[in-house]
Amino acid sequence: MKFFLENQDKNTKARAGRIQTDHGTIETPIFMPVGTAGTVKAVHQRELKDDVQAQIILGNTYHLYLRPGLPIIEAAGGLHKFNGWDFPILTDSGGYQVYSLAGTGRKINEAGVEFKSHIDGSLHTFTPEGVMDIQRKIGADIIMAFDECTPYPCEYDYARTSMELTHRWLQRCCDRFDTTESLYGYQQTLFPIVQGSVYKDLRQRSAEKIASFGREGNAIGGLSVGEPAEIMYELTEVVCDILPADKPRYLMGVGTPANILEGIALGVDMFDCVMPTRNARNGMLFTTEGIINIRNEKWKDDFSPIDKNLGGYVSTFYSKAYLRHLVKSDEMLGAQIASVHNLSFYLWLVKEARRRIMAGDFRMWKEEMIKKVMQRL
Amino acid sequence: MKFFLENQDKNTKARAGRIQTDHGTIETPIFMPVGTAGTVKAVHQRELKDDVQAQIILGNTYHLYLRPGLPIIEAAGGLHKFNGWDFPILTDSGGYQVYSLAGTGRKINEAGVEFKSHIDGSLHTFTPEGVMDIQRKIGADIIMAFDECTPYPCEYDYARTSMELTHRWLQRCCDRFDTTESLYGYQQTLFPIVQGSVYKDLRQRSAEKIASFGREGNAIGGLSVGEPAEIMYELTEVVCDILPADKPRYLMGVGTPANILEGIALGVDMFDCVMPTRNARNGMLFTTEGIINIRNEKWKDDFSPIDKNLGGYVSTFYSKAYLRHLVKSDEMLGAQIASVHNLSFYLWLVKEARRRIMAGDFRMWKEEMIKKVMQRL
Ligand SMILES: [Zn+2]
Ligand SMILES: [Zn+2]
Repeated sequence: MKFFLENQDKNTKARAGRIQTDHGTIETPIFMPVGTAGTVKAVHQRELKDDVQAQIILGNTYHLYLRPGLPIIEAAGGLHKFNGWDFPILTDSGGYQVYSLAGTGRKINEAGVEFKSHIDGSLHTFTPEGVMDIQRKIGADIIMAFDECTPYPCEYDYARTSMELTHRWLQRCCDRFDTTESLYGYQQTLFPIVQGSVYKDLRQRSAEKIASFGREGNAIGGLSVGEPAEIMYELTEVVCDILPADKPRYLMGVGTPANILEGIALGVDMFDCVMPTRNARNGMLFTTEGIINIRNEKWKDDFSPIDKNLGGYVSTFYSKAYLRHLVKSDEMLGAQIASVHNLSFYLWLVKEARRRIMAGDFRMWKEEMIKKVMQRL
Repeated sequence: MKFFLENQDKNTKARAGRIQTDHGTIETPIFMPVGTAGTVKAVHQRELKDDVQAQIILGNTYHLYLRPGLPIIEAAGGLHKFNGWDFPILTDSGGYQVYSLAGTGRKINEAGVEFKSHIDGSLHTFTPEGVMDIQRKIGADIIMAFDECTPYPCEYDYARTSMELTHRWLQRCCDRFDTTESLYGYQQTLFPIVQGSVYKDLRQRSAEKIASFGREGNAIGGLSVGEPAEIMYELTEVVCDILPADKPRYLMGVGTPANILEGIALGVDMFDCVMPTRNARNGMLFTTEGIINIRNEKWKDDFSPIDKNLGGYVSTFYSKAYLRHLVKSDEMLGAQIASVHNLSFYLWLVKEARRRIMAGDFRMWKEEMIKKVMQRL
């Protein structure tokens, strides 16, 4: 993996860059659609590429490990071959899921985490070494260190102890990763994760520690877990100022369109979130003019396109009234249209941000855009 | 509407033809995907056109009348404008749905049928005249007469009484239809429906009666409702031999791939069925080699395309193993892939049948194909 910084905004800490992987180039800042179980929900791979214009998608180690399971992914020749997405993929480490999904009955200790499958209740153990091996087998281009993701709120002492465990686990992740090889002939790279909950001093310590590992990219975890947005921004800034400028920074699990614009302004290069697809399935649309709850009566005879400013098939072909009818009727096509649309919007947003960073007028555009994307239509 | 008979098979009663409507031409024999609520479930309009290569789709009067309702469809300028399908559409009359869906509490008399909405329990009445007006407002190119669709089994006396009612209702449908106009500037045409349950003499009487109305096309209803396939074939033959040869014949709600091939051989030109999409959502695939239950263990590491003989994006891009994973994981993309695939297969089947009818080797191909499509892989 290589990262090229192409422009640094003069008025904010926003950057435009380019990440090169063996599966192609990613223009940053970038939003990464979440493909939990090897599928971005309700979206065809072709739509992801041609309509959404995604450049990289996520897979979840926890989900893929449980189903379809590693033997099948390995037999396919890795996740790219299995799901047909022949562009960059990033897998998270399962650190977040073993807490949020397999929450009950999990046991955490120095060695790793024992948890029960949310599918069949079967017992499994994730260790830093094991999770590296799993991600080797899944074969994502960018893989994540195994961490403990603290919830919000979280006591200072627990946050500190947990952060230190995450740091020790990181050393074990690096040791394992650096002594193993990619299984499918292309390069993989490991990103470590900054933790430290909402505590500035812990975040600083963690950022310094993570930076000291000198990996090719760095991530910020444990934010966007329920804390106020202002706290998230403050801690993101603290951490971004410490993480090296010549490497991509990934703010995990973030967020709303406004969160993403603020994150970009603080120097974040990569984002992921289930929000565009999950909210789509509930009938909530993100558009260039603001937020639409398509279930509302007011859209029932609005035959204008979902978002004429956006371009792309679904956003211009289907009307708001038709989409409302589909969503109200629980028709799958409703979720399909809304998912492609919301992702198209998110990808448009980061592409436009990049264009503004390159052109030098990012800050003004961002201020206006944040007002727009936060208003309910 | 115009119908051109292009070839009559020498060895069977199969025909190849062409139906011209103001929304384009339909090559017969044709299969019509069912778009109950103005959407073919899980399939984008673009996929329906480019991948499935559908030439005409169905809409259900009962469903569309209840939701989104006529005021919205009228405000949109008709169903084509509302859902963006700018090709031929056929609507059924609701005759089948008021029995199957709004079953409880319906009251049938000479005037029409009173029924309760399956959505909110509200009371509605369908009359022959009312259903013509509704279908004028929906604006399909081909609309269906309001009939009583008898269940299977059905006593002879009930079948006869019901058939006679359907005939009297047909007169009222024609009277209303012929004294009203299309609302959206293109032509609509009305197809009457042969009834008579499984009784040969009733079917003969009904076919003669329906033919005597001299409409531009004719339909066979009340079959494929649970009776053995052999009975369906026998009655279809009886009716097809009576219905005029210079007009298209539509066998409603049929059926399996084998049913369709046999129907074509008996002189049927048009088919519709929810089977390809409904079974898709349950993981049952129709392929050029036979039937696949994609949930079966045997497909878990079969990385070959769903159907390499079929062409088209979903059938060749996605593997059986990946589709199995999606279906087992209840991922929407599984239903999407299987739906587009099954419809692609159905449209391939009728297109290939047409090619064989034109080439003169339909019968031999049909015999081989029936063996293939009925076998479980
Ligand atoms: Zn999120
Ligand atoms: Zn059917």
